[in-house]
Amino acid sequence: MKSDVANVSLEEIQAPVRAELDEVFEELGRILLADVTLINDVSSHLLRIKGKMFRPTLLLLSAQAVGSVQAKERTLAAVVELIHLATLLHDDSIDHSALRRGQPTVNAEFSHEVAVIMGDYLYSRAIEQLVNLKSQDALEIMSRVTNELTVGEMREVLAYDGLEFSEEGYRSLILGKTASLIAGACELGALAGGPEWRDVMRSYGTDLGAAFQIADDLLDYTATEEATGKPVGQDLREHKVTLPLIAALPQMSADDRVVVESLMADPEPDDDHIAAVIRIVEARGGIEAARERASELANGAEKKLDRLPAGAARDALRSCITYCVERSK
Amino acid sequence: MKSDVANVSLEEIQAPVRAELDEVFEELGRILLADVTLINDVSSHLLRIKGKMFRPTLLLLSAQAVGSVQAKERTLAAVVELIHLATLLHDDSIDHSALRRGQPTVNAEFSHEVAVIMGDYLYSRAIEQLVNLKSQDALEIMSRVTNELTVGEMREVLAYDGLEFSEEGYRSLILGKTASLIAGACELGALAGGPEWRDVMRSYGTDLGAAFQIADDLLDYTATEEATGKPVGQDLREHKVTLPLIAALPQMSADDRVVVESLMADPEPDDDHIAAVIRIVEARGGIEAARERASELANGAEKKLDRLPAGAARDALRSCITYCVERSK
Repeated sequence: MKSDVANVSLEEIQAPVRAELDEVFEELGRILLADVTLINDVSSHLLRIKGKMFRPTLLLLSAQAVGSVQAKERTLAAVVELIHLATLLHDDSIDHSALRRGQPTVNAEFSHEVAVIMGDYLYSRAIEQLVNLKSQDALEIMSRVTNELTVGEMREVLAYDGLEFSEEGYRSLILGKTASLIAGACELGALAGGPEWRDVMRSYGTDLGAAFQIADDLLDYTATEEATGKPVGQDLREHKVTLPLIAALPQMSADDRVVVESLMADPEPDDDHIAAVIRIVEARGGIEAARERASELANGAEKKLDRLPAGAARDALRSCITYCVERSK
Repeated sequence: MKSDVANVSLEEIQAPVRAELDEVFEELGRILLADVTLINDVSSHLLRIKGKMFRPTLLLLSAQAVGSVQAKERTLAAVVELIHLATLLHDDSIDHSALRRGQPTVNAEFSHEVAVIMGDYLYSRAIEQLVNLKSQDALEIMSRVTNELTVGEMREVLAYDGLEFSEEGYRSLILGKTASLIAGACELGALAGGPEWRDVMRSYGTDLGAAFQIADDLLDYTATEEATGKPVGQDLREHKVTLPLIAALPQMSADDRVVVESLMADPEPDDDHIAAVIRIVEARGGIEAARERASELANGAEKKLDRLPAGAARDALRSCITYCVERSK
């Protein structure tokens, strides 16, 4: 992927909560332990891949920014990662994806069946942890979030094949599918500092999460495959309509539209066809418009942080914004 | 299906809580309502099929037997049905089943993707309702139950293709997959009458649920297809090892074992092969042994009811035992 700005590294962002993050990872292992070998095998596979632990990072940084990280926050951080992993398992299982983060998915390594059940297992373990904490606030946040997540996933089903998919529909989709859990992580972290911080942190997380998803969707138009140098275009290949296309559509000529519509009608569009649509979307300002939207959201997130006590955690939360948004450049 | 005993009808069992059950059904509709048309379409499909509402029935009868049915119990009854429906959706989606209760499954009528997401949606809505009730007891029961459910489903994965699958493994499987939610429904109902009834009702539900599953597994050996008169044998066709086979295995001759092992090695065993294994299982006492086990469990469930206050609800709970067990005859 080409990048024309300096990257903020994840290590840098995670530095203020490094020790706590390691404890969260240990806690994940404890939570996942079962007396069924198959479950432990899948858990080991998941923990080996590990991932960026971005949502636990946000939770811990939020807690540190407005209060402090205690045992409860570490458990909550493990819970948000479990919910995130559960959605990945079900996503991969639905998409029949073979790889995730360069590693075999659970559906590929074990089976489709195991991936669906393991997703349910992770989800149920997460809820158990929340119930054990006896925090009505945390339960309310996470039960709302998990419901919004599933509603967002259902909206995503509608984002395929439909050029009538609206900017409003897209907004609802990314708020549910992505921003909700990120906002929930920030809000759960804020519980450490008392209720006065909950709204600010949720609001920061909502803007951040929406910007994150727009940046991710932009990558499909702007990034190129390392091996081939061709644009990724995976969403277009799957007929998935995202913001760059939605924003470009009203500006398109009749000829442009024919190219786009024929791609949507083609079950297996070829690389040239995909590249042509990407060029149209770019020429009609779709990429620029999506970047602007991500940038507005990033500014919104920045503003919310101004209200927080100054410190390393707030600085890191600020870097999170850059980290999320610059992915699209 | 052939039957040599009088059936206890579901209508009879449900009579003491008929009005409340109708309210639970209404409540289900309210809980499922979303602002995404696709979700509402799937919900309508699910509500149209409706099903027996056996778990809500048990919850309401348990509540009535030891206390009374209030608004809270109606919500809890809706919650257990939602969890049950969620597991059915994921089961059907995993098995690629086309029909359930003679109606198209959600994966057949909509898509595999929609079935998985809708299962998650139902589950998340159920948890939201529980959280709104602010009952730590109910949350503890249901978070434990949903976790046991998923662990049971994972154990079921191991019940395929393995003649080394033990009676102990089978017991753990049915306790998790079936008995847990049924016991949870009874225990939730008992909350209406105070904590002194929780253990008795959970224990009744555990015995009942285990008997129910054994009876269900027996049906695969004893029932015949209406159209063909042939035994169902679907579990054997899918290489699923259940109690009749487990119980018969130690009594089998070397020749018997060859027939069974060759079925397990055949990806698509034919009807004659399945019928031969069923005959062996019957001749080696597997069906009798499974019936005895179901009968012991039924007696255990009966005994627990003796402690309850006499009344129409207790009588109906007693009929539930007959209803569950006689299915295998």
